Amino acid sequence: MQIDKYKIQEFNQGHAQDHKRKFDFAASSQHNVEGVLQKLVDFQIGIPSWALGTGGTRFGRFSGSGEPRSLEEKIEDVGLLHALNQSSGAISLHIPWDIPNDYKAIKALAAQHGLKFDAVNSNTFQDQPDQKLSYKFGSMQHVDKAVRRQAVEHNIEVIRHGVELGSDSLTVWLSDGSSFPGQLNFRDAFENTLESLQEVYAALPDDWKVFVEYKAFEPNFYSMTVGDWGQSLLYANKLGPKAYTLVDLGHHLPNANIEQIVSLLLMEGKLGGFHFNDSKYGDDDLTTGSIKPYQLFLIFNSLVDGMDARGMNHATSLAWMIDASHNVKDPLEDLLQSVEAIMIAYTQALLVDQKALKEAQQENDVVRCQEVLQEAYRTDVRPFVAEARLRSGAALRPLQLFRELKVRENLINERGLKTVATGL
Amino acid sequence: MQIDKYKIQEFNQGHAQDHKRKFDFAASSQHNVEGVLQKLVDFQIGIPSWALGTGGTRFGRFSGSGEPRSLEEKIEDVGLLHALNQSSGAISLHIPWDIPNDYKAIKALAAQHGLKFDAVNSNTFQDQPDQKLSYKFGSMQHVDKAVRRQAVEHNIEVIRHGVELGSDSLTVWLSDGSSFPGQLNFRDAFENTLESLQEVYAALPDDWKVFVEYKAFEPNFYSMTVGDWGQSLLYANKLGPKAYTLVDLGHHLPNANIEQIVSLLLMEGKLGGFHFNDSKYGDDDLTTGSIKPYQLFLIFNSLVDGMDARGMNHATSLAWMIDASHNVKDPLEDLLQSVEAIMIAYTQALLVDQKALKEAQQENDVVRCQEVLQEAYRTDVRPFVAEARLRSGAALRPLQLFRELKVRENLINERGLKTVATGL
Amino acid sequence: MQIDKYKIQEFNQGHAQDHKRKFDFAASSQHNVEGVLQKLVDFQIGIPSWALGTGGTRFGRFSGSGEPRSLEEKIEDVGLLHALNQSSGAISLHIPWDIPNDYKAIKALAAQHGLKFDAVNSNTFQDQPDQKLSYKFGSMQHVDKAVRRQAVEHNIEVIRHGVELGSDSLTVWLSDGSSFPGQLNFRDAFENTLESLQEVYAALPDDWKVFVEYKAFEPNFYSMTVGDWGQSLLYANKLGPKAYTLVDLGHHLPNANIEQIVSLLLMEGKLGGFHFNDSKYGDDDLTTGSIKPYQLFLIFNSLVDGMDARGMNHATSLAWMIDASHNVKDPLEDLLQSVEAIMIAYTQALLVDQKALKEAQQENDVVRCQEVLQEAYRTDVRPFVAEARLRSGAALRPLQLFRELKVRENLINERGLKTVATGL
Amino acid sequence: MQIDKYKIQEFNQGHAQDHKRKFDFAASSQHNVEGVLQKLVDFQIGIPSWALGTGGTRFGRFSGSGEPRSLEEKIEDVGLLHALNQSSGAISLHIPWDIPNDYKAIKALAAQHGLKFDAVNSNTFQDQPDQKLSYKFGSMQHVDKAVRRQAVEHNIEVIRHGVELGSDSLTVWLSDGSSFPGQLNFRDAFENTLESLQEVYAALPDDWKVFVEYKAFEPNFYSMTVGDWGQSLLYANKLGPKAYTLVDLGHHLPNANIEQIVSLLLMEGKLGGFHFNDSKYGDDDLTTGSIKPYQLFLIFNSLVDGMDARGMNHATSLAWMIDASHNVKDPLEDLLQSVEAIMIAYTQALLVDQKALKEAQQENDVVRCQEVLQEAYRTDVRPFVAEARLRSGAALRPLQLFRELKVRENLINERGLKTVATGL
Repeated sequence: MQIDKYKIQEFNQGHAQDHKRKFDFAASSQHNVEGVLQKLVDFQIGIPSWALGTGGTRFGRFSGSGEPRSLEEKIEDVGLLHALNQSSGAISLHIPWDIPNDYKAIKALAAQHGLKFDAVNSNTFQDQPDQKLSYKFGSMQHVDKAVRRQAVEHNIEVIRHGVELGSDSLTVWLSDGSSFPGQLNFRDAFENTLESLQEVYAALPDDWKVFVEYKAFEPNFYSMTVGDWGQSLLYANKLGPKAYTLVDLGHHLPNANIEQIVSLLLMEGKLGGFHFNDSKYGDDDLTTGSIKPYQLFLIFNSLVDGMDARGMNHATSLAWMIDASHNVKDPLEDLLQSVEAIMIAYTQALLVDQKALKEAQQENDVVRCQEVLQEAYRTDVRPFVAEARLRSGAALRPLQLFRELKVRENLINERGLKTVATGL
Repeated sequence: MQIDKYKIQEFNQGHAQDHKRKFDFAASSQHNVEGVLQKLVDFQIGIPSWALGTGGTRFGRFSGSGEPRSLEEKIEDVGLLHALNQSSGAISLHIPWDIPNDYKAIKALAAQHGLKFDAVNSNTFQDQPDQKLSYKFGSMQHVDKAVRRQAVEHNIEVIRHGVELGSDSLTVWLSDGSSFPGQLNFRDAFENTLESLQEVYAALPDDWKVFVEYKAFEPNFYSMTVGDWGQSLLYANKLGPKAYTLVDLGHHLPNANIEQIVSLLLMEGKLGGFHFNDSKYGDDDLTTGSIKPYQLFLIFNSLVDGMDARGMNHATSLAWMIDASHNVKDPLEDLLQSVEAIMIAYTQALLVDQKALKEAQQENDVVRCQEVLQEAYRTDVRPFVAEARLRSGAALRPLQLFRELKVRENLINERGLKTVATGL
Repeated sequence: MQIDKYKIQEFNQGHAQDHKRKFDFAASSQHNVEGVLQKLVDFQIGIPSWALGTGGTRFGRFSGSGEPRSLEEKIEDVGLLHALNQSSGAISLHIPWDIPNDYKAIKALAAQHGLKFDAVNSNTFQDQPDQKLSYKFGSMQHVDKAVRRQAVEHNIEVIRHGVELGSDSLTVWLSDGSSFPGQLNFRDAFENTLESLQEVYAALPDDWKVFVEYKAFEPNFYSMTVGDWGQSLLYANKLGPKAYTLVDLGHHLPNANIEQIVSLLLMEGKLGGFHFNDSKYGDDDLTTGSIKPYQLFLIFNSLVDGMDARGMNHATSLAWMIDASHNVKDPLEDLLQSVEAIMIAYTQALLVDQKALKEAQQENDVVRCQEVLQEAYRTDVRPFVAEARLRSGAALRPLQLFRELKVRENLINERGLKTVATGL
Repeated sequence: MQIDKYKIQEFNQGHAQDHKRKFDFAASSQHNVEGVLQKLVDFQIGIPSWALGTGGTRFGRFSGSGEPRSLEEKIEDVGLLHALNQSSGAISLHIPWDIPNDYKAIKALAAQHGLKFDAVNSNTFQDQPDQKLSYKFGSMQHVDKAVRRQAVEHNIEVIRHGVELGSDSLTVWLSDGSSFPGQLNFRDAFENTLESLQEVYAALPDDWKVFVEYKAFEPNFYSMTVGDWGQSLLYANKLGPKAYTLVDLGHHLPNANIEQIVSLLLMEGKLGGFHFNDSKYGDDDLTTGSIKPYQLFLIFNSLVDGMDARGMNHATSLAWMIDASHNVKDPLEDLLQSVEAIMIAYTQALLVDQKALKEAQQENDVVRCQEVLQEAYRTDVRPFVAEARLRSGAALRPLQLFRELKVRENLINERGLKTVATGL
């Protein structure tokens, strides 16, 4: 299924008047509205290929319907999202779930939907049917050099696929760690992992980056060998200038101040990418902005401040991606909600009066510092996000149009009621 | 495979001298050694039928080998454990994974291994292939009365199976809850759940108990409809005298004082059962005693104190069960380690000088209170546990004998390398 | 210092046009604006007498200036807040810090500021200079009946003061608990505490309520004898119909779902009062709404839903109070920010389309449930709060006027640079 | 008061037979007993001068009696501890609470008790009465260079005192941070702090070390400018070879894996010191080993492994110190319990069969890894600790002798019932 541009225009015309009223009101109180809108138009959030199907937990999975059965259908799904919001212009592939048969055809298909290929993702946290050695006790950390080598080679193969597709970065998330005290020696595990990463790093094309993603716990429940930003930064620094830390919002211990971590990583020039989701307890992988929207805003405030301090382009300097699980919602609807929440938080951060904030900070006027942030956060910025969509040819209200066009029903008709996408 | 009694005796003889030396030393410093030993001999920990295979996480499962392929083989596995330690004399079945075809044959098989049937467990957290209505949005809490009714009927069927097998209690763990704010109305969810539980309660035989298990989060990540001991107690009180709360060690928010919860539930006469495991982050389901053995001791101290205050029989008043997941260890070895840790903590609790503790408490002598507890905890009580095993005809060192007898290798020979047990 | 009504009118006139534009826009998209405004006008948040000075931690206190030196000056401070926002029409006294010398004069002073006396608060978590027995090892839980008796008598005395002032409720927050395993017997501590509370309960006037406040930890760091809502509810149920649970936002374990707790307590008819603040790690006592404003909204959503289900009057059925500490902000400014955040969250909750929400819940349309809540939350409701203030004779922007009128500077002139209010 | 050596000998003789029996039994199962005992004899734990009085919380303090009123009496107190256990041979001073008047006399007094001066500690988390600029909004992070300069100069003064006393290291714990979002710019705060630390570093004598202590939260409740090990390591690396990270057990987010942090810091050659205490919720500052003794053992296992891998001397390479608060126990008794728990954990770590552990790790034999650790941990090692004390001339049971000699009663007689030591 593809969404006809004309359908979008028609929908927008129906809501044009209401939108104009709201946008005019919103715009009347802000400076530099055009600058903000351009940034919103430019900002694109990658969609991971594994998040287009229904997710589950170890207790089970309640599958949805009309899920994509192939890489082509996954691209089609992201194309649908992008048509609706023009903010999802990239897809992030997972190997081996998404190995293309015909690179040229896949690239053409993506181009047709206006999509580029973001970071490619390796998988050494599961055993594949034809795999020689098991990752049961880790991959890059493994005590057996042969297992480490297998993991390294897999990553190099992932890079090869990425090169063919026009991607320029590799995300390495390792589930390596231990579930029991004594199971491994932390130092050995670190050093083995570093050695493995160095071998992957050596195979990186010149213009590529590698992102070392950290996670505090799960699926290992005692230690993780890339467990926090401090460890990730150690690896990245030891690897070299093409290596960066990747922050996933759900990968922290309770109460961690993620906005501070982001700020320091940017200060060090070592923040490479970002995975969006939300959570209350652990790596819950809920819809972005559904639990802690103020934290999301504060993180964007740190991001904007830190990127601006280094003259970084908001849209292109970091790899932005959603990484959530859709257990009880339609995956496409869930992704539309996540993108909306991200755009809202980004807009709020753009509206922060940075000059007033800096002034208040210099005077230790904590009350005013809070007022400045809350002024931006309490503003209803949805009209800006909608306006940016309007200007990009997207729908004023993507979710509503998704439902009015009966997208899922159409996909079920095309793909069937019982289809299960690869993924978690 | 069955373990010949003679093998155990032979093994024990080989370690008799070493054991005697340690036991004599240990016994020389304690009063009432015989009383303690008798309690250890009597204490039996149920083994859940779903924990005999390799467990996994949402990220994958690395299967083991020689796993039980049927209810009969699961009983055989528990029989092996019980032969080795004589402390695992009960099995807890899960319906629908363990529906018996022939009750009489199954009962005879269990009896042959010296096993009885503990609490039966229902499952409304997954959809079964032939199931009419889905539990995707809950079971007993569901907004649709028909779904609730289906869940109730399933529980009544579980009771029926249990009656046939000689079980006398039902454990209800509900994954019901919500993953997003607004998804449900907490009050409605509570009231629906209560209504459903009341219908199940009405179907309980007179001499049965029902255990309402609570859990703070997972697989729902915003709210759980039986989320903490306070909620479970509300249900149990509203249900009536046959309803009790069941505590699973891994089902709490970070830093919860579980020993206090246990104490208060016993005070209220509403503690019904106990699920053992250990964890560092969430419901990690690790080997009991592998992460926080002192907490386990403190919980047993509360249990012993609370049961004694009500004149409850340690061995029979509460339903004791292990409920762990074995992702990186051989399930049987893991269970042997868990039972050992439980027996150790129980012994330590039995050795607490309750009179001295009470005295110190009365004097607010906090230093001495701590000394009294640590005196028991720091004692090496393994010789007592071993002696109790010796007297029961079990192995002095179950794990060592398990390995020497090559139990797993034998099971693989019998069952095959690639067998996967039902379960999580 | 008192704020002249004329000053407020003058200020409001200066901002009238801007306000009208915003209010008209906001009102144009909402139904029942008048109903909402009336509820906002009626809603009053109590100010605790101990929060008018600079707070501190165990590491130190950095005092502010112009702090109130007496009960009279504390009433004056609350009067200033109330003049500015007309939403702080009550003061909650702490005994022994605020023992009035002349009830009649104090009542007259409060009336002059339009203030009533909310719940009175006892203090058995500190030793007072002239106190006979120490609370070092607890008060109502104490192993020594004489200490318990002293604590009971203190509470009865607090009630007497409250009666004289026209208060009609007592808040009991106990720091009782233990810092080390073994220090106390949980059951004995519970039973002693219950007995003490029963004695206090017996002394309650017929039309009074007693609120049993719970807290997970601090200042005791192993167990708290009223540690969670489950325990508090146990006490309240055993005490009788005049006893209720009081929820303080900062008194929970990490990640607790407070909105669910609130909902269940309302369902049980046992929610009595509410203490507002915000926190990231523990009982941080930060400005309400400064860390987790969405959680605050969700809590208000549960409150509104639960109160409406029972036909409770929002403004009068529960005791609403701020309970925060002001370590780095001017206490009065901080309180203005807290009240503003509370009013915003309350307004957002009032704007939730309950009918649509219920419908979506009935259909398990989780996406729409979230949309309904976010629609209310993302709305800029500040114009409604401002309009309610305008109608009550308060300032459109209380904090701005506070600064323009140089209130703190005036108080410093009156009271001096180095004045320290009693409190934490 | 001083404890006569003869008293100790007499006491030990009374318990010699019992001890010998236990020690002989314990020693009979271990290799290299003499090597372990020598390490225990050598191991010394510093006592902070501020932990000799009763501690408190923001809610109050319940003072004890006979607390030291001067630096001389604090040294006397540590001398008493050291006489009893011969494991507390160092004192760590806090400036400005412990500024010596006469260095020579103080050094002589310390020498007389067999004590050396460990790391000196600066204090920029409180304002002192005569202080020019306030640290309300931070010290080394402060936006005002003059405040930063003041903090730097204070640290330099602390170094000067330390040099006079023969100390060779400075511990810098900063409470710097923010309590509200927006209050500071994380990057600016980091850079200001780094600049300040660099100025202090420049003033370090050649043979000195500086320890940068991190803490996750409290007394700032939104962000801490040296908030975790990653940040501390960043500072230490940027400062140079004399700068190290200091780990305090209570300064982490919930569930942090401290033993892994320790291991990685040792791998990086950047672990400098260690503060012992225990906690359940936050920086509870409870008696070491009173809550999570197994974690303490695991940490020591990492320490021993990491130090041995680098050929570091256990006793002298790291700065070991207790840093706890004594709210409900006699401070000296509490410290005796802490030292005992530390020595026990250290001994258990020394008894780990490292060869077997490494072997099991190489084979991914997770069950056996756990067995190896638990074998050491479950051993009753108290006889080794006691034997080491016996050989050092300390008491077999320090706490018992402390009570038998009525040490506190004697101190009360000497110092009075109402004395309050400086400190937290």
